[in-house]
Amino acid sequence: MRPHVVVNVAVSADGKLSTFERRQVKISGPEDFRRVDRLKAGADAVMVGIGTVLADDPSLTVKDPALIAAREAAGRGPHPVRVVVDSRGRCPLDAAVLHRGTGQRVVAVSAACPPERRAALEAYATVVVAGEEQVDLGVLLEELSLLGVGRLMVEGGGTLIGALLSAGLVDEVYVFTGNMIIGGATAPTLADGPGCSASRPFVRLDLANVQPCEEGVLLHWRVRKESEPGLT
Amino acid sequence: MRPHVVVNVAVSADGKLSTFERRQVKISGPEDFRRVDRLKAGADAVMVGIGTVLADDPSLTVKDPALIAAREAAGRGPHPVRVVVDSRGRCPLDAAVLHRGTGQRVVAVSAACPPERRAALEAYATVVVAGEEQVDLGVLLEELSLLGVGRLMVEGGGTLIGALLSAGLVDEVYVFTGNMIIGGATAPTLADGPGCSASRPFVRLDLANVQPCEEGVLLHWRVRKESEPGLT
Repeated sequence: MRPHVVVNVAVSADGKLSTFERRQVKISGPEDFRRVDRLKAGADAVMVGIGTVLADDPSLTVKDPALIAAREAAGRGPHPVRVVVDSRGRCPLDAAVLHRGTGQRVVAVSAACPPERRAALEAYATVVVAGEEQVDLGVLLEELSLLGVGRLMVEGGGTLIGALLSAGLVDEVYVFTGNMIIGGATAPTLADGPGCSASRPFVRLDLANVQPCEEGVLLHWRVRKESEPGLT
Repeated sequence: MRPHVVVNVAVSADGKLSTFERRQVKISGPEDFRRVDRLKAGADAVMVGIGTVLADDPSLTVKDPALIAAREAAGRGPHPVRVVVDSRGRCPLDAAVLHRGTGQRVVAVSAACPPERRAALEAYATVVVAGEEQVDLGVLLEELSLLGVGRLMVEGGGTLIGALLSAGLVDEVYVFTGNMIIGGATAPTLADGPGCSASRPFVRLDLANVQPCEEGVLLHWRVRKESEPGLT
Protein backbone atom coordinates (compact mmCIF):
# COMPACT_ATOMS: atom_id res chain seq x y z
CA MET A 1 0.00 0.00 0.00
CA ARG A 2 1.50 3.29 -1.12
CA PRO A 3 0.16 6.76 -2.02
CA HIS A 4 -0.75 7.77 -5.56
CA VAL A 5 2.43 9.53 -6.69
CA VAL A 6 2.37 12.53 -9.05
CA VAL A 7 5.63 14.08 -10.24
CA ASN A 8 5.57 17.71 -11.38
CA VAL A 9 8.52 19.53 -12.89
CA ALA A 10 9.35 22.39 -15.22
CA VAL A 11 12.23 21.88 -17.64
CA SER A 12 13.89 23.85 -20.41
CA ALA A 13 13.41 22.74 -24.03
CA ASP A 14 16.60 20.71 -23.63
CA GLY A 15 15.27 18.97 -20.51
CA LYS A 16 17.14 20.79 -17.74
CA LEU A 17 15.65 21.59 -14.31
CA SER A 18 18.25 24.28 -13.56
CA THR A 19 21.71 25.40 -14.63
CA PHE A 20 24.76 23.21 -14.06
CA GLU A 21 25.38 25.32 -10.94
CA ARG A 22 21.89 24.29 -9.77
CA ARG A 23 20.70 27.86 -10.05
CA GLN A 24 16.96 28.07 -10.46
CA VAL A 25 15.70 29.39 -13.78
CA LYS A 26 12.25 30.91 -14.26
CA ILE A 27 10.91 28.38 -16.75
CA SER A 28 7.15 28.96 -16.55
CA GLY A 29 4.85 31.88 -15.74
CA PRO A 30 1.83 32.73 -13.57
CA GLU A 31 -0.63 30.42 -15.36
CA ASP A 32 1.55 27.39 -14.77
CA PHE A 33 2.28 28.60 -11.24
CA ARG A 34 -1.46 28.48 -10.48
CA ARG A 35 -1.74 24.98 -11.94
CA VAL A 36 1.11 23.78 -9.75
CA ASP A 37 -0.41 25.48 -6.70
CA ARG A 38 -3.72 23.65 -7.37
CA LEU A 39 -1.88 20.36 -7.77
CA LYS A 40 -0.14 20.99 -4.46
CA ALA A 41 -3.38 21.96 -2.72
CA GLY A 42 -4.88 18.67 -3.90
CA ALA A 43 -2.06 16.60 -2.42
CA ASP A 44 -1.80 15.19 1.06
CA ALA A 45 1.97 15.53 1.02
CA VAL A 46 4.65 17.20 -1.10
CA MET A 47 8.09 15.65 -1.35
CA VAL A 48 11.52 16.87 -2.44
CA GLY A 49 15.06 15.55 -2.18
CA ILE A 50 17.70 17.16 0.02
CA GLY A 51 19.53 18.52 -3.05
CA THR A 52 16.51 20.67 -3.86
CA VAL A 53 16.30 21.93 -0.26
CA LEU A 54 19.99 22.87 -0.29
CA ALA A 55 19.81 24.52 -3.74
CA ASP A 56 16.44 26.31 -3.62
CA ASP A 57 15.25 26.32 0.02
CA PRO A 58 11.56 25.91 -0.99
CA SER A 59 8.76 26.13 1.59
CA LEU A 60 6.47 23.74 -0.35
CA THR A 61 3.45 25.62 0.98
CA VAL A 62 0.22 26.33 -0.90
CA LYS A 63 0.29 29.98 -1.97
CA ASP A 64 -3.29 30.88 -3.02
CA PRO A 65 -5.38 31.90 0.03
CA ALA A 66 -8.52 30.52 -1.68
CA LEU A 67 -6.94 27.10 -2.04
CA ILE A 68 -5.80 27.20 1.59
CA ALA A 69 -9.33 28.17 2.69
CA ALA A 70 -10.79 25.30 0.65
CA ARG A 71 -8.41 22.83 2.28
CA GLU A 72 -9.35 24.12 5.73
CA ALA A 73 -13.09 24.03 4.92
CA ALA A 74 -12.59 20.34 4.08
CA GLY A 75 -11.06 19.74 7.51
CA ARG A 76 -7.51 19.49 6.20
CA GLY A 77 -4.49 21.50 7.25
CA PRO A 78 -3.63 24.61 5.21
CA HIS A 79 -0.65 22.89 3.58
CA PRO A 80 0.22 19.33 2.60
CA VAL A 81 2.64 17.41 4.78
CA ARG A 82 6.12 18.49 3.70
CA VAL A 83 8.49 15.55 3.13
CA VAL A 84 12.26 15.75 2.63
CA VAL A 85 14.23 12.70 1.49
CA ASP A 86 17.55 13.22 3.23
CA SER A 87 19.56 10.01 3.72
CA ARG A 88 22.32 11.62 5.82
CA GLY A 89 20.18 14.18 7.68
CA ARG A 90 21.82 17.19 6.01
CA CYS A 91 18.68 19.36 6.06
CA PRO A 92 19.59 22.75 7.60
CA LEU A 93 17.65 23.38 10.80
CA ASP A 94 16.62 26.79 9.49
CA ALA A 95 15.36 25.45 6.14
CA ALA A 96 12.11 27.11 5.00
CA VAL A 97 10.48 23.70 4.61
CA LEU A 98 10.80 23.16 8.38
CA HIS A 99 9.46 26.58 9.37
CA ARG A 100 7.24 28.30 6.82
CA GLY A 101 3.51 27.56 7.21
CA THR A 102 1.87 25.34 9.79
CA GLY A 103 1.54 21.60 9.46
CA GLN A 104 3.42 18.36 9.70
CA ARG A 105 6.92 17.76 8.33
CA VAL A 106 8.55 14.43 7.65
CA VAL A 107 12.29 14.06 7.15
CA ALA A 108 13.20 10.63 5.82
CA VAL A 109 16.71 9.48 6.70
CA SER A 110 18.60 6.21 6.37
CA ALA A 111 20.32 4.23 9.12
CA ALA A 112 23.52 5.99 8.01
CA CYS A 113 22.23 9.35 9.31
CA PRO A 114 24.35 10.51 12.27
CA PRO A 115 22.28 10.19 15.50
CA GLU A 116 22.91 13.82 16.49
CA ARG A 117 21.51 15.02 13.15
CA ARG A 118 18.48 12.81 13.61
CA ALA A 119 17.94 14.17 17.15
CA ALA A 120 18.28 17.76 15.93
CA LEU A 121 15.78 17.26 13.11
CA GLU A 122 13.26 15.66 15.48
CA ALA A 123 12.68 19.10 17.04
CA TYR A 124 11.05 20.19 13.77
CA ALA A 125 9.87 17.08 11.96
CA THR A 126 8.74 13.50 12.22
CA VAL A 127 11.90 11.58 11.36
CA VAL A 128 11.32 8.33 9.46
CA VAL A 129 14.24 5.92 9.23
CA ALA A 130 14.09 3.71 6.15
CA GLY A 131 16.96 1.92 4.44
CA GLU A 132 20.61 1.37 5.32
CA GLU A 133 22.70 3.82 3.27
CA GLN A 134 20.05 5.45 1.08
CA VAL A 135 16.45 6.05 2.03
CA ASP A 136 14.38 3.02 0.93
CA LEU A 137 11.69 4.85 -1.03
CA GLY A 138 9.25 1.93 -1.08
CA VAL A 139 9.36 1.68 2.72
CA LEU A 140 9.06 5.46 3.04
CA LEU A 141 5.95 5.53 0.83
CA GLU A 142 4.37 2.78 2.96
CA GLU A 143 5.11 4.87 6.06
CA LEU A 144 3.54 7.92 4.45
CA SER A 145 0.50 5.84 3.63
CA LEU A 146 0.20 4.87 7.31
CA LEU A 147 0.41 8.59 8.16
CA GLY A 148 -2.69 9.13 6.02
CA VAL A 149 -1.04 10.29 2.79
CA GLY A 150 -3.18 9.08 -0.09
CA ARG A 151 -1.87 11.46 -2.75
CA LEU A 152 1.78 12.50 -2.89
CA MET A 153 3.22 15.20 -5.12
CA VAL A 154 6.94 15.10 -5.91
CA GLU A 155 8.59 18.36 -6.97
CA GLY A 156 12.20 17.21 -7.50
CA GLY A 157 15.02 16.99 -7.85
CA GLY A 158 16.13 14.74 -10.66
CA THR A 159 17.94 12.26 -8.45
CA LEU A 160 14.86 11.60 -6.28
CA ILE A 161 12.52 11.43 -9.30
CA GLY A 162 14.88 9.10 -11.15
CA ALA A 163 15.02 6.79 -8.13
CA LEU A 164 11.22 6.79 -7.73
CA LEU A 165 10.68 6.07 -11.43
CA SER A 166 13.19 3.26 -11.59
CA ALA A 167 11.64 1.71 -8.45
CA GLY A 168 8.20 1.74 -10.10
CA LEU A 169 6.80 4.16 -7.53
CA VAL A 170 5.35 6.86 -9.82
CA ASP A 171 1.83 7.03 -11.31
CA GLU A 172 1.76 10.33 -13.21
CA VAL A 173 4.30 12.83 -14.51
CA TYR A 174 3.59 16.44 -15.47
CA VAL A 175 6.34 18.15 -17.44
CA PHE A 176 6.09 21.82 -18.32
CA THR A 177 8.61 22.43 -21.11
CA GLY A 178 9.70 26.05 -21.35
CA ASN A 179 10.93 28.10 -24.30
CA MET A 180 14.62 28.29 -23.49
CA ILE A 181 17.80 26.26 -23.74
CA ILE A 182 19.75 25.94 -20.49
CA GLY A 183 22.30 23.42 -21.70
CA GLY A 184 25.04 21.64 -19.82
CA ALA A 185 26.05 17.99 -19.66
CA THR A 186 25.95 18.13 -15.85
CA ALA A 187 22.78 20.23 -15.37
CA PRO A 188 20.01 18.36 -13.49
CA THR A 189 17.26 16.68 -15.52
CA LEU A 190 13.90 15.08 -14.75
CA ALA A 191 15.45 11.67 -14.12
CA ASP A 192 19.06 11.59 -12.96
CA GLY A 193 20.87 8.93 -10.96
CA PRO A 194 22.37 5.91 -12.74
CA GLY A 195 19.65 5.64 -15.42
CA CYS A 196 18.68 2.59 -17.38
CA SER A 197 20.96 0.46 -19.51
CA ALA A 198 20.43 -2.49 -21.80
CA SER A 199 20.12 -4.76 -18.74
CA ARG A 200 17.46 -2.73 -16.94
CA PRO A 201 13.97 -2.02 -18.25
CA PHE A 202 12.84 1.41 -19.31
CA VAL A 203 9.86 2.98 -17.68
CA ARG A 204 7.13 3.28 -20.32
CA LEU A 205 4.59 6.09 -20.30
CA ASP A 206 1.26 6.86 -21.92
CA LEU A 207 0.54 10.39 -23.06
CA ALA A 208 -2.57 11.59 -21.22
CA ASN A 209 -2.57 15.16 -22.49
CA VAL A 210 -0.50 17.79 -24.25
CA GLN A 211 -1.31 21.48 -24.45
CA PRO A 212 0.49 24.70 -25.17
CA CYS A 213 0.73 26.77 -22.00
CA GLU A 214 2.11 30.30 -21.90
CA GLU A 215 5.26 30.18 -24.06
CA GLY A 216 5.81 26.47 -23.51
CA VAL A 217 4.01 23.14 -23.52
CA LEU A 218 2.53 21.06 -20.71
CA LEU A 219 2.82 17.29 -21.10
CA HIS A 220 0.92 14.92 -18.85
CA TRP A 221 2.12 11.32 -18.81
CA ARG A 222 0.76 8.26 -17.00
CA VAL A 223 3.23 5.57 -16.06
CA ARG A 224 2.35 2.30 -17.78
CA LYS A 225 1.80 -0.26 -15.06
CA GLU A 226 3.38 -3.30 -16.68
CA SER A 227 6.61 -1.36 -17.04
CA GLU A 228 7.07 -0.84 -13.35
CA PRO A 229 10.08 -2.89 -12.28
CA GLY A 230 8.79 -2.83 -8.71
CA LEU A 231 5.67 -4.82 -9.60
CA THR A 232 5.91 -8.58 -9.32
CA MET B 1 26.71 34.23 -44.41
CA ARG B 2 25.80 30.83 -43.07
CA PRO B 3 23.25 28.13 -43.91
CA HIS B 4 19.80 27.97 -42.33
CA VAL B 5 20.36 25.47 -39.51
CA VAL B 6 17.67 23.01 -38.39
CA VAL B 7 18.32 20.71 -35.43
CA ASN B 8 16.31 17.49 -35.24
CA VAL B 9 16.45 15.05 -32.33
CA ALA B 10 14.36 12.45 -30.56
CA VAL B 11 14.53 12.38 -26.77
CA SER B 12 12.90 10.40 -23.99
CA ALA B 13 10.32 12.10 -21.75
CA ASP B 14 13.19 12.94 -19.42
CA GLY B 15 15.19 14.56 -22.22
CA LYS B 16 17.79 11.88 -23.00
CA LEU B 17 19.13 11.11 -26.48
CA SER B 18 20.40 7.66 -25.46
CA THR B 19 21.40 5.67 -22.38
CA PHE B 20 24.34 6.72 -20.23
CA GLU B 21 26.35 4.08 -22.16
CA ARG B 22 25.39 6.00 -25.36
CA ARG B 23 23.35 3.04 -26.54
CA GLN B 24 20.70 4.08 -29.01
CA VAL B 25 17.09 3.68 -27.90
CA LYS B 26 14.17 3.39 -30.31
CA ILE B 27 12.35 6.55 -29.25
CA SER B 28 10.01 7.12 -32.18
CA GLY B 29 8.29 4.98 -34.84
CA PRO B 30 7.76 4.83 -38.61
CA GLU B 31 5.68 8.02 -38.87
CA ASP B 32 8.39 10.11 -37.26
CA PHE B 33 11.04 8.25 -39.25
CA ARG B 34 9.34 9.41 -42.47
CA ARG B 35 9.17 13.00 -41.19
CA VAL B 36 12.91 12.94 -40.44
CA ASP B 37 13.67 11.39 -43.82
CA ARG B 38 11.71 14.21 -45.51
CA LEU B 39 13.57 16.80 -43.44
CA LYS B 40 16.86 15.20 -44.50
CA ALA B 41 15.84 15.06 -48.16
CA GLY B 42 15.07 18.78 -48.00
CA ALA B 43 18.52 19.63 -46.64
CA ASP B 44 21.67 20.39 -48.60
CA ALA B 45 23.83 18.89 -45.86
CA VAL B 46 23.41 16.79 -42.71
CA MET B 47 25.80 17.22 -39.81
CA VAL B 48 26.71 15.15 -36.76
CA GLY B 49 29.48 15.25 -34.16
CA ILE B 50 32.19 12.61 -33.94
CA GLY B 51 30.64 11.18 -30.75
CA THR B 52 27.53 10.23 -32.71
CA VAL B 53 29.65 8.61 -35.46
CA LEU B 54 31.57 6.57 -32.89
CA ALA B 55 28.44 5.56 -30.93
CA ASP B 56 25.92 4.90 -33.73
CA ASP B 57 27.83 4.76 -37.04
CA PRO B 58 25.00 6.43 -39.00
CA SER B 59 25.09 6.74 -42.79
CA LEU B 60 23.02 9.97 -42.82
CA THR B 61 21.56 8.95 -46.18
CA VAL B 62 18.00 9.57 -47.36
CA LYS B 63 16.13 6.26 -47.11
CA ASP B 64 12.90 6.67 -49.13
CA PRO B 65 13.53 5.95 -52.86
CA ALA B 66 10.79 8.44 -53.80
CA LEU B 67 12.57 11.22 -51.92
CA ILE B 68 15.87 10.26 -53.54
CA ALA B 69 14.21 10.29 -56.96
CA ALA B 70 12.72 13.73 -56.28
CA ARG B 71 16.15 15.08 -55.31
CA GLU B 72 17.68 13.68 -58.49
CA ALA B 73 14.84 15.02 -60.63
CA ALA B 74 15.67 18.45 -59.21
CA GLY B 75 19.27 18.06 -60.27
CA ARG B 76 20.61 17.39 -56.80
CA GLY B 77 22.59 14.42 -55.55
CA PRO B 78 20.64 11.52 -54.03
CA HIS B 79 21.80 12.43 -50.53
CA PRO B 80 22.73 15.64 -48.73
CA VAL B 81 26.39 16.40 -48.16
CA ARG B 82 27.39 14.44 -45.06
CA VAL B 83 29.33 16.55 -42.51
CA VAL B 84 31.21 15.26 -39.46
CA VAL B 85 32.53 17.67 -36.83
CA ASP B 86 35.66 15.91 -35.65
CA SER B 87 38.24 18.22 -34.07
CA ARG B 88 40.96 15.55 -33.71
CA GLY B 89 40.21 13.54 -36.86
CA ARG B 90 39.07 10.44 -34.98
CA CYS B 91 36.49 9.37 -37.58
CA PRO B 92 37.12 5.68 -38.45
CA LEU B 93 38.08 5.25 -42.09
CA ASP B 94 35.42 2.55 -42.45
CA ALA B 95 32.63 4.68 -40.93
CA ALA B 96 29.31 4.30 -42.75
CA VAL B 97 29.09 8.06 -43.22
CA LEU B 98 32.21 7.94 -45.43
CA HIS B 99 31.04 5.01 -47.56
CA ARG B 100 27.29 4.43 -47.71
CA GLY B 101 25.51 6.24 -50.58
CA THR B 102 27.11 8.46 -53.19
CA GLY B 103 27.81 12.14 -52.68
CA GLN B 104 30.16 14.56 -51.04
CA ARG B 105 31.47 14.23 -47.47
CA VAL B 106 33.02 16.94 -45.34
CA VAL B 107 35.04 16.20 -42.22
CA ALA B 108 35.70 19.32 -40.19
CA VAL B 109 38.84 19.19 -38.06
CA SER B 110 40.78 21.72 -36.01
CA ALA B 111 44.43 22.67 -36.33
CA ALA B 112 45.03 20.16 -33.50
CA CYS B 113 44.16 17.23 -35.77
CA PRO B 114 47.25 15.06 -36.40
CA PRO B 115 48.44 15.55 -40.02
CA GLU B 116 48.42 11.80 -40.73
CA ARG B 117 44.74 11.58 -39.71
CA ARG B 118 43.92 14.53 -41.90
CA ALA B 119 45.73 12.94 -44.86
CA ALA B 120 43.95 9.63 -44.29
CA LEU B 121 40.52 11.28 -44.16
CA GLU B 122 41.21 13.23 -47.36
CA ALA B 123 40.92 9.96 -49.30
CA TYR B 124 37.21 9.90 -48.45
CA ALA B 125 36.14 13.45 -47.65
CA THR B 126 36.75 17.12 -48.15
CA VAL B 127 38.64 18.06 -45.00
CA VAL B 128 37.93 21.55 -43.69
CA VAL B 129 40.30 22.95 -41.07
CA ALA B 130 38.63 25.50 -38.78
CA GLY B 131 39.69 26.54 -35.30
CA GLU B 132 42.72 25.82 -33.16
CA GLU B 133 41.75 23.14 -30.63
CA GLN B 134 38.05 22.73 -31.30
CA VAL B 135 36.35 23.16 -34.65
CA ASP B 136 35.24 26.79 -35.00
CA LEU B 137 31.60 26.20 -35.89
CA GLY B 138 30.99 29.71 -37.23
CA VAL B 139 33.89 29.36 -39.65
CA LEU B 140 32.77 25.87 -40.62
CA LEU B 141 29.26 27.09 -41.42
CA GLU B 142 30.68 29.85 -43.60
CA GLU B 143 32.76 27.23 -45.44
CA LEU B 144 29.66 25.08 -45.95
CA SER B 145 27.85 28.10 -47.31
CA LEU B 146 30.66 28.58 -49.86
CA LEU B 147 30.25 24.89 -50.81
CA GLY B 148 26.63 25.65 -51.70
CA VAL B 149 24.92 24.51 -48.50
CA GLY B 150 21.89 26.71 -47.96
CA ARG B 151 20.01 24.45 -45.57
CA LEU B 152 21.82 22.36 -42.95
CA MET B 153 20.21 19.68 -40.78
CA VAL B 154 21.94 18.72 -37.52
CA GLU B 155 21.16 15.31 -36.07
CA GLY B 156 23.35 15.38 -32.93
CA GLY B 157 24.84 14.72 -30.64
CA GLY B 158 24.20 16.87 -27.61
CA THR B 159 27.68 18.33 -27.43
CA LEU B 160 27.59 19.61 -31.02
CA ILE B 161 24.03 20.91 -30.68
CA GLY B 162 24.84 22.63 -27.39
CA ALA B 163 27.83 24.34 -28.98
CA LEU B 164 25.81 25.45 -32.03
CA LEU B 165 23.01 26.82 -29.85
CA SER B 166 25.31 28.70 -27.52
CA ALA B 167 27.13 30.20 -30.51
CA GLY B 168 23.82 31.49 -31.93
CA LEU B 169 24.09 29.27 -35.02
CA VAL B 170 20.70 27.51 -34.92
CA ASP B 171 17.42 28.66 -36.50
CA GLU B 172 14.96 25.86 -35.75
CA VAL B 173 14.78 22.90 -33.38
CA TYR B 174 12.53 19.85 -33.78
CA VAL B 175 12.23 17.68 -30.67
CA PHE B 176 10.30 14.43 -30.78
CA THR B 177 9.62 13.47 -27.16
CA GLY B 178 8.97 9.75 -26.72
CA ASN B 179 6.95 7.86 -24.13
CA MET B 180 9.72 6.42 -22.01
CA ILE B 181 12.12 7.37 -19.26
CA ILE B 182 15.77 6.61 -19.96
CA GLY B 183 17.22 8.34 -16.93
CA GLY B 184 20.82 8.89 -15.94
CA ALA B 185 22.69 11.98 -14.80
CA THR B 186 25.36 11.35 -17.45
CA ALA B 187 23.12 10.32 -20.36
CA PRO B 188 23.38 12.66 -23.39
CA THR B 189 20.75 15.39 -23.79
CA LEU B 190 19.74 17.82 -26.52
CA ALA B 191 22.22 20.46 -25.32
CA ASP B 192 25.30 19.24 -23.46
CA GLY B 193 28.69 20.90 -23.12
CA PRO B 194 29.24 23.51 -20.41
CA GLY B 195 25.72 24.97 -20.55
CA CYS B 196 24.65 28.42 -19.52
CA SER B 197 25.16 30.02 -16.16
CA ALA B 198 24.03 33.27 -14.59
CA SER B 199 26.75 35.12 -16.50
CA ARG B 200 25.83 33.80 -19.95
CA PRO B 201 22.54 34.41 -21.74
CA PHE B 202 20.03 31.63 -22.33
CA VAL B 203 18.93 30.86 -25.81
CA ARG B 204 15.25 31.81 -26.09
CA LEU B 205 12.84 29.95 -28.34
CA ASP B 206 9.38 30.49 -29.79
CA LEU B 207 7.01 27.57 -30.05
CA ALA B 208 6.09 27.16 -33.72
CA ASN B 209 4.05 23.99 -33.37
CA VAL B 210 3.21 21.10 -31.05
CA GLN B 211 1.41 17.91 -32.03
CA PRO B 212 0.99 14.41 -30.69
CA CYS B 213 2.81 11.95 -32.96
CA GLU B 214 2.62 8.20 -32.48
CA GLU B 215 3.00 7.65 -28.73
CA GLY B 216 4.90 10.89 -28.17
CA VAL B 217 4.84 14.57 -29.00
CA LEU B 218 6.62 16.59 -31.66
CA LEU B 219 7.69 20.10 -30.67
CA HIS B 220 8.89 22.60 -33.23
CA TRP B 221 10.78 25.60 -31.87
CA ARG B 222 12.22 28.63 -33.64
CA VAL B 223 15.27 30.27 -32.10
CA ARG B 224 14.48 33.85 -31.12
CA LYS B 225 16.90 36.05 -33.01
CA GLU B 226 17.61 38.63 -30.33
CA SER B 227 18.74 35.86 -28.00
CA GLU B 228 21.56 34.73 -30.22
CA PRO B 229 24.79 35.61 -28.47
CA GLY B 230 26.58 35.46 -31.85
CA LEU B 231 24.60 38.42 -33.21
CA THR B 232 26.04 41.86 -32.70
